[in-house]
Amino acid sequence: MARVSAVEWRGDRLVLLDQTQLPEAVAFHEYSNWRSVVDAIKTMVVRGAPAIGVAGAFAMALAARELIGDEKWRERLNLIAREVAGARPTAVNLSWAVRRLMEAAAAAPDSGQAFTALLASASAILAADESINAAIADHGVSLVPHDSTVLTICNTGSLAAAGYGTALGIIRRAHELGKNIHVFVSETRPRLQGMRLTAWELANDGISHTIITDNMAGFLMRQGRVQMAVVGADRIAANGDTANKIGTYTIATLCRVHDLPFIIAAPMSTVDHTTTDASAIEIEYRDKSEVLSIGGVRIAPDGTPAINPAFDVTPAEMITAIVTERGVARSPYTTSLAPFEGR
Amino acid sequence: MARVSAVEWRGDRLVLLDQTQLPEAVAFHEYSNWRSVVDAIKTMVVRGAPAIGVAGAFAMALAARELIGDEKWRERLNLIAREVAGARPTAVNLSWAVRRLMEAAAAAPDSGQAFTALLASASAILAADESINAAIADHGVSLVPHDSTVLTICNTGSLAAAGYGTALGIIRRAHELGKNIHVFVSETRPRLQGMRLTAWELANDGISHTIITDNMAGFLMRQGRVQMAVVGADRIAANGDTANKIGTYTIATLCRVHDLPFIIAAPMSTVDHTTTDASAIEIEYRDKSEVLSIGGVRIAPDGTPAINPAFDVTPAEMITAIVTERGVARSPYTTSLAPFEGR
Repeated sequence: MARVSAVEWRGDRLVLLDQTQLPEAVAFHEYSNWRSVVDAIKTMVVRGAPAIGVAGAFAMALAARELIGDEKWRERLNLIAREVAGARPTAVNLSWAVRRLMEAAAAAPDSGQAFTALLASASAILAADESINAAIADHGVSLVPHDSTVLTICNTGSLAAAGYGTALGIIRRAHELGKNIHVFVSETRPRLQGMRLTAWELANDGISHTIITDNMAGFLMRQGRVQMAVVGADRIAANGDTANKIGTYTIATLCRVHDLPFIIAAPMSTVDHTTTDASAIEIEYRDKSEVLSIGGVRIAPDGTPAINPAFDVTPAEMITAIVTERGVARSPYTTSLAPFEGR
Repeated sequence: MARVSAVEWRGDRLVLLDQTQLPEAVAFHEYSNWRSVVDAIKTMVVRGAPAIGVAGAFAMALAARELIGDEKWRERLNLIAREVAGARPTAVNLSWAVRRLMEAAAAAPDSGQAFTALLASASAILAADESINAAIADHGVSLVPHDSTVLTICNTGSLAAAGYGTALGIIRRAHELGKNIHVFVSETRPRLQGMRLTAWELANDGISHTIITDNMAGFLMRQGRVQMAVVGADRIAANGDTANKIGTYTIATLCRVHDLPFIIAAPMSTVDHTTTDASAIEIEYRDKSEVLSIGGVRIAPDGTPAINPAFDVTPAEMITAIVTERGVARSPYTTSLAPFEGR
């Protein structure tokens, strides 16, 4: 099966694969205004830190188009930028992309040229993501042993990025190189991105895998059936503290106790050097209905109390390595990540 | 809301609350032959180690009734005993109950008196469970601090036992004593006993609680929002190694890393002194459809690989205390549990 594009620009509109409908249906939606793209980010039609960065960039380009000829375009674009960047607070790729687009806007003399510049900038982010994914895979694949079983959580593949994927990109590359790997896919409650999206991608690529519920990883590690974990990231602080999908911290803890490598894979746009450590990372809490319902079916009675933190933070000292497109960083990350910045 | 009985004997038949239908419906089924009770145990109409022990005992009594007047009743009852005990392999209460019933059968001179003896024995197990639950709660409640938040997994309440519950019995008692506790209920994939059953029981009793997905416990502990974990058991080896619902070992690991008490609550019938340590405990693997579907809704495509170990093992050294009806045992369990046996 050919790899589908999660985010694509078609001349005058953005096309998103509706990830809330996978794996039942492969449906695409078209977006011609920025507000509808923000809704798509909030409702997770598009998700995955790199992919929402790209979608946010095109939201800004669409906004610039709507503002052509508007006298107050700079002021208005600035307000829209805040809304786009705030659509999901934890993944820093979104605010990173918006900032890049606003730099392009600042250099534009008028609203017409602003649109042209923003569209070019968004397209560049999309195009770069593919080569960034490939570089992450190249750097990370050496960390995957032959004949090993790799644990992952959430979705970090083609659906989460514009290209090959981040953590799943490394897994793909290991498979392509004939490393004979098997993947345990943690289903990733509440939204089941592991079961719905990652298993779908792995099946499409013919990579051997097994779905587990999130509470099975410890059991498998204790039995010696896992050799490493590789996951993505939504924000990496300057010291290496990493926010990622809820459940990641538990996997890192289990890896530490079982003396297994715990690897983060992410583009440098996920590293937020303005955040010193995890204490400044805002954790997004989503609606409790995501916990109380599964696949649209309500499991617990109405009024049942629940919480839904979408992310957790893994402290830097529990991370074996952070794989980026510029190379593999190891602790202490403040010094190992810094040289990768701004190249 | 009055507490419902999960397992009840009504003169000539067993009545089970269908736990697969909760919380949507409170439905009871009647059982007049042993085979249908075995099916109910296998399909988890009745579940929870103490409750399936009671149900298994009545399955044996029903078998004895079917064999009244049968010349080969001893031989046949023996074969049935193996089937009942094997309905679920991990929870030792089931084989413990069957063994007790077979001792009653051995002492009976004929098939008619065997039925009478087995029915009396099964009724005694049912009646004892209530006082055992109360004693566990009495012993365990001192371990629960005032104004604390307690994490639990699966269901260990009235639905899992004939009485008050084991781990949930301790929580109930703490609530009744005004200890001002809050309960985080791990939803317990794949079958969601936490979300479906424990939340239902806690709501009925007016005990403050919040449902979380199984991958959130680490996040909450790291934030200092959990003070202890208390869980049940399906089999406790002589050395204290404990098999319980899948995910328990991960909670124990998180408790150790965050320096929190990890408490097991179970009747002495769960302690299998013939099992030296965890290596001899058989882990039941259930059908993968339980992982791939939720609430009858298929999430992953047909043919998706998955595994479904129903239990994991927590090594004795990670357990702060084991609360039984005879008292609180602490490490080393081989010596602390032994005096509780056979009283």
